[in-house]
Amino acid sequence: MKQIPFQNIQIQNGFWKKKQDLIKEVTIGAVYDRFRETHRFSALQCDWKEGEANMPHIFWDSDIAKWIEGVAYAMNDTDLAEYEKIIDEAIENILKNRDENGYFNSHFLVHRQDQRFKLRSEHELYCAGHLIEAAIAYYQATGKRKFLDAMCQYADYIERIFKIEKSAAFVTPGHPEIELALVRLYHVTGIRRYLSLAQFFVDEHGNNTVDQVLSDWTEMTYNQDDIPLRQRSTAEGHCVRALYLLCAMIDIAAETDDETLLAAAQRMFQNIIEKRMYITGGVGSTYLGEAFTIDYDLPNRTAYAETCASIALAMAAGRFQQTDVRAVYADIVERTIYNGILSGISMDGVSFFYENPLAVDPYFNHVNMATKEKARFPQTQREQVFECSCCPPNLIRFIASIADYMYTYDQDVLYVHQYMESEMSVDNMQVQQKTEYPCNGEVFLRLCVPQKYVAVRIPFWCKKFSIDHEYEMKNGYAYIPIENHEEEVRISFEMPVTAYRANARVHADAGKIAVMRGPVVYCAEGIDNGDDVAAIRLNPSAQYQLQESEWILPVLVGHAFKTRGNNRLYYPAQDEWEEIPVKLIPYFAFANRGETEMQVWLTEK
Amino acid sequence: MKQIPFQNIQIQNGFWKKKQDLIKEVTIGAVYDRFRETHRFSALQCDWKEGEANMPHIFWDSDIAKWIEGVAYAMNDTDLAEYEKIIDEAIENILKNRDENGYFNSHFLVHRQDQRFKLRSEHELYCAGHLIEAAIAYYQATGKRKFLDAMCQYADYIERIFKIEKSAAFVTPGHPEIELALVRLYHVTGIRRYLSLAQFFVDEHGNNTVDQVLSDWTEMTYNQDDIPLRQRSTAEGHCVRALYLLCAMIDIAAETDDETLLAAAQRMFQNIIEKRMYITGGVGSTYLGEAFTIDYDLPNRTAYAETCASIALAMAAGRFQQTDVRAVYADIVERTIYNGILSGISMDGVSFFYENPLAVDPYFNHVNMATKEKARFPQTQREQVFECSCCPPNLIRFIASIADYMYTYDQDVLYVHQYMESEMSVDNMQVQQKTEYPCNGEVFLRLCVPQKYVAVRIPFWCKKFSIDHEYEMKNGYAYIPIENHEEEVRISFEMPVTAYRANARVHADAGKIAVMRGPVVYCAEGIDNGDDVAAIRLNPSAQYQLQESEWILPVLVGHAFKTRGNNRLYYPAQDEWEEIPVKLIPYFAFANRGETEMQVWLTEK
Repeated sequence: MKQIPFQNIQIQNGFWKKKQDLIKEVTIGAVYDRFRETHRFSALQCDWKEGEANMPHIFWDSDIAKWIEGVAYAMNDTDLAEYEKIIDEAIENILKNRDENGYFNSHFLVHRQDQRFKLRSEHELYCAGHLIEAAIAYYQATGKRKFLDAMCQYADYIERIFKIEKSAAFVTPGHPEIELALVRLYHVTGIRRYLSLAQFFVDEHGNNTVDQVLSDWTEMTYNQDDIPLRQRSTAEGHCVRALYLLCAMIDIAAETDDETLLAAAQRMFQNIIEKRMYITGGVGSTYLGEAFTIDYDLPNRTAYAETCASIALAMAAGRFQQTDVRAVYADIVERTIYNGILSGISMDGVSFFYENPLAVDPYFNHVNMATKEKARFPQTQREQVFECSCCPPNLIRFIASIADYMYTYDQDVLYVHQYMESEMSVDNMQVQQKTEYPCNGEVFLRLCVPQKYVAVRIPFWCKKFSIDHEYEMKNGYAYIPIENHEEEVRISFEMPVTAYRANARVHADAGKIAVMRGPVVYCAEGIDNGDDVAAIRLNPSAQYQLQESEWILPVLVGHAFKTRGNNRLYYPAQDEWEEIPVKLIPYFAFANRGETEMQVWLTEK
Repeated sequence: MKQIPFQNIQIQNGFWKKKQDLIKEVTIGAVYDRFRETHRFSALQCDWKEGEANMPHIFWDSDIAKWIEGVAYAMNDTDLAEYEKIIDEAIENILKNRDENGYFNSHFLVHRQDQRFKLRSEHELYCAGHLIEAAIAYYQATGKRKFLDAMCQYADYIERIFKIEKSAAFVTPGHPEIELALVRLYHVTGIRRYLSLAQFFVDEHGNNTVDQVLSDWTEMTYNQDDIPLRQRSTAEGHCVRALYLLCAMIDIAAETDDETLLAAAQRMFQNIIEKRMYITGGVGSTYLGEAFTIDYDLPNRTAYAETCASIALAMAAGRFQQTDVRAVYADIVERTIYNGILSGISMDGVSFFYENPLAVDPYFNHVNMATKEKARFPQTQREQVFECSCCPPNLIRFIASIADYMYTYDQDVLYVHQYMESEMSVDNMQVQQKTEYPCNGEVFLRLCVPQKYVAVRIPFWCKKFSIDHEYEMKNGYAYIPIENHEEEVRISFEMPVTAYRANARVHADAGKIAVMRGPVVYCAEGIDNGDDVAAIRLNPSAQYQLQESEWILPVLVGHAFKTRGNNRLYYPAQDEWEEIPVKLIPYFAFANRGETEMQVWLTEK
């Protein structure tokens, strides 16, 4: 099975066109400005001297690299000449300042030359991986090879140090990323050594005593060092690390037909989506180690649910989608892209959440004022840039290339995983999608393809749908025969507002429901519903009116209940319900109007 | 208005007889054994040398003192000769080892002679206060004066150092306690200087720049130093410190007719009971500084609600009861004694809770294992002794003297605040109570008193009651005329099981109800109801059968609901309720059968 790369798909109108335009018109420039102001770009000149301010940070190269990668994707269908010039300059600096082996790291070159590849936790290979991905993207966007060639040399050097000479102080990266980058480098260059190097890192993870030492986070799970990856049955430790590594595991398993590795990857993935994932697709529920915790531990107010972690979960799901036809993968992609990923960026495109809580309660965030320790809660407002600013450029590259998740195909079947108004055209395949999804569930497909079937995903949230052709259901896809390689298909997914419960083991959601419409999770904000959102009680079968809103998608307006005002601290429960209006907005749009209460999980009446 | 001291009341049969017998037969001995084993008693010999193990701790004198005080109370109606001998020995050690000024502190005498009265946070005056209270109690129980005389000398010395010479390094105690002890000493000795010294400390609290420095807990509220006490409108800082000081404020206000001080005390008290108190009478919701936080911040799983804090709240309420006739004071005493205080001691009388959470979820207490920091939750099982073991002897002295809270009187009215099977006899007043309260709400009173009225409290939880006499209601009391100084009165309080809601501002209890029967809060434990107690949904008007139990009071057996088993993490909410049996036990009896889930606030259906 193969994927249709986003470069062959033009997203037109609709939800994602608006988001991609925002990225191109606002976010790329805003993130560039913040990175420039914070000396990330000038750091590439490698002229920082000890004692000066603004020492290049260990993460900075990766921030720049992800931004370059995102701009390169956006250039696919948009003239971004001003940014191309900036990228060319950045690349010139990288090329000029790397050493004779091709090594480049703006932090180690100016600050810790003698500790190169000695400090496992300092993100050197992570930065290298992102530089490799950026070089590939830029080459594919522009045809310019210099950066790619340089990164091949760098990869060769890494291979020598880590795999051949074994002269580094550690065996595997503290923070995975280079593994999946090396697989991509293999795909672009055809040089199999890169795949082997990626496989080497995957094989060694949790499999060597050099790395198996107590880290800053004490337990070896943090860095995925506790057991060999092929033995994994749950997702553990630092969430983004675990998931970038999971992506590499799937890649390598697919390339090498390694069923043991694929099975381990599937176990990890199942563990996440069955027991460790928020309804928003958020993952990694604690800020302590930015980590997975234990099954069903999904607190709402303290949810970490890093934007990058949801992106990484979508990346993993997108990879599984190429190995196996089960709707669950595209369902997870869909869950993340409309919720836990998209909440990471403000509606105006300039500020970002690192953490994506499912409940915000500003008043109670300020308890413990009498003591020096404070309870720790996620930020309630988005920021323009972070010290570790991985999420903003990750959103740029992800949204710019989101069409990657739309189609896969084999000889007989074209699979339609995601619904976005678009035209796909590659070789002998053309597909047009007309849809306002997820504003509504009407999808029109015009296909001109060599395959005998088009298999369209029936989304997890959809209980009733109609297709104007005969079809057969298999693993969540409706297989529709294509006569003479051309077909027009109309699909109608009924998209009622639906209240969800969580598994009884998720004690944080006990007695609560979450409202979704289609793939979109809704939430109640204090600014719309008054204080004490926690006290609102929703009937799970309540009816809502859809109202047009500033959030692209409609808001839900309906009725809920509160107990009649009572000043007493405790009072006998009586049926003293007062019907109140309630307004729910898409979760991704929360916190765009100042600090206010917010809850996804609302008390059920 | 005067109180009838417990010494004049014999509790007979019923709930509190059982608890007092447990204290006398088990707890006094068990706590003695633990204190002896942990070298607290031998520390009084003051022969510890630097370098040896078991250095006397700054708290130890107060632990011993409270134990002596409790034993002295228990001696009122029970022969405890063996413990009297132990106490006499302890007193001998104190007398022998105090210095020429009467100063005694087993920690400072052996370890920090030169830092005496220099370290405000080291509990010297707190220990002195408890020694004074012990000496008073022992004198009242046995007529032996030596200890009391010694403590008078100590109090004189404290007066000289703190009030006359002002040669201490601080002005007021870091941990209040001595203030209320000095008022008692004034009552026993008639020496008004002790009242003045107590008043001096109360006046100076938050009123002098010597003490107003940042402490270990940074904010000055911790030690009640932020503002003068007469300006207080809320309860702030370390909960037990705030409440012991509150007791002294009420005492001094009553003795000196200081209305400003009394008004401040009332504001603090109202703030607590209207906005900062658990339904169990637990107070001080955070372990950080063992402190009050902000209004309506009453988390259940992390509730600190120290046993000593609930005792101190009852102590304050008992004092208000002597200043003002409003049922709220005795209601608060009742709420604490059947719930948040009593949960502090195990059913077998040998182990204790320092913290009294309102929810226990053992599985989720173990999250964040992957990282070195762990979430911090209260202990789930009681302990026999703590390093700071204030709560166990505090429970002994409180339960042994609980009849103190039963009666007050003035010329015209005898007030009956609490219902316990008992005989009271003092001078020209005799009252017999026959009742199984709170097993049921039937109370029979036989009175032979000079007053014209008996005023019986109608408890806060009681909506229907009958009295076999005419009466007039005022401030929560039914005033019943007494003809010819003799009367028999039958009162019947209806005691249905009642579900309570919390104020909408208490977000931790949103969508939840707590079940009470009479003054007793009930809870659901996992051992009776299976895992996922959070998922149980209770109808607020559910009916229960009362079943006899091992917990003195009946357990409640009824029906609740769960959603039908569903393995999915999230699923559309449907009416798929399964009726399940539910068993609720008194909250005070939780955690007597091993570690298991527990919730007071249960999801409402």
